[in-house]
Amino acid sequence: MQVMVDLCVVPLGVGVSVSPQVAACQRVIQASGLNYRMHAYGTNIEGPWDEVMAVVKRCHEVVHEMGAPRITSTLRVGTRIDRAQSMDDKVASVEALLKE
Amino acid sequence: MQVMVDLCVVPLGVGVSVSPQVAACQRVIQASGLNYRMHAYGTNIEGPWDEVMAVVKRCHEVVHEMGAPRITSTLRVGTRIDRAQSMDDKVASVEALLKE
Amino acid sequence: MQVMVDLCVVPLGVGVSVSPQVAACQRVIQASGLNYRMHAYGTNIEGPWDEVMAVVKRCHEVVHEMGAPRITSTLRVGTRIDRAQSMDDKVASVEALLKE
Amino acid sequence: MQVMVDLCVVPLGVGVSVSPQVAACQRVIQASGLNYRMHAYGTNIEGPWDEVMAVVKRCHEVVHEMGAPRITSTLRVGTRIDRAQSMDDKVASVEALLKE
Repeated sequence: MQVMVDLCVVPLGVGVSVSPQVAACQRVIQASGLNYRMHAYGTNIEGPWDEVMAVVKRCHEVVHEMGAPRITSTLRVGTRIDRAQSMDDKVASVEALLKE
Repeated sequence: MQVMVDLCVVPLGVGVSVSPQVAACQRVIQASGLNYRMHAYGTNIEGPWDEVMAVVKRCHEVVHEMGAPRITSTLRVGTRIDRAQSMDDKVASVEALLKE
Repeated sequence: MQVMVDLCVVPLGVGVSVSPQVAACQRVIQASGLNYRMHAYGTNIEGPWDEVMAVVKRCHEVVHEMGAPRITSTLRVGTRIDRAQSMDDKVASVEALLKE
Repeated sequence: MQVMVDLCVVPLGVGVSVSPQVAACQRVIQASGLNYRMHAYGTNIEGPWDEVMAVVKRCHEVVHEMGAPRITSTLRVGTRIDRAQSMDDKVASVEALLKE
């Protein structure tokens, strides 16, 4: 089962700037070899369910290892079995409609 | 690593009523033996990370098996390593403050 | 337009315990007179769109006034125009299926 | 109060493809004049709280007018009072750390 997620990891108890923890998660995501795209409020990641969810878990582990006592993340989790659809496909289908 | 999630599974392409699919997910959650509590816009589930995430995956599988071609879920995912805190603890600590 | 939301307010830069801020939001919600129900990872609130969203805004204002420099909240936002459905209705329809 | 949101609008009861409704929301967002950026699982929007939330409401209204009987959206809602930070600033601060 393929999945596309949108992940936003929020460490608590580390002060007001969370960019070091977000950058650490980006390194975890990059190292996974999965397709991803960061935006200003999260990161899209696509791939096989178990691989994507292993990345989410690894992000929590790494951010705790950096010293964050507490983390609250949000995830959107999309699966479909009618056809394959990549992140690029989703954006392209909306952009095509916007050009009409 | 213990985790508390708040899960809301939304099947697409099955019409406007999604309660059969939500009920099927509740059965998956019940069968897991994990602590959980349903509310009007999702379900809190707590337990070991891998067990909780296996339940989330099984919910997607079951809802697809019921015929939903597409699913979009949302998850809040909370972990903390400073101390144990159950769903009941979280509610109780807020309610104690409200009674002051 | 009636709306049902599920709101989880997360203050950043205030340390690891966020229950004082969550309790302050509960007071804002209570004072609104809207129907609501707190759970372990957020609060369901239902009512007219503008009233519910005014409560969400007031929660951010109050938590900033308490000293939080930064807040990241998550909201699920449900509207339907085919029929009225309360928080109790949603839970009851799933529970009825679970008893079959 | 400035806000940055990440909005994902999900119409129910319209079948499996939701790109026409997503495109309609993009038109609402474009027409607002606010800064925004679409990604594969939502759209970042930034600006004054009331203007951004008016766009969210208008998206629900427009998607209902297109015939969707039910909508469930998810929003991340970020505010900060310590300093101004745009969508571009957030991405740039993470990317700077990744280049170190």
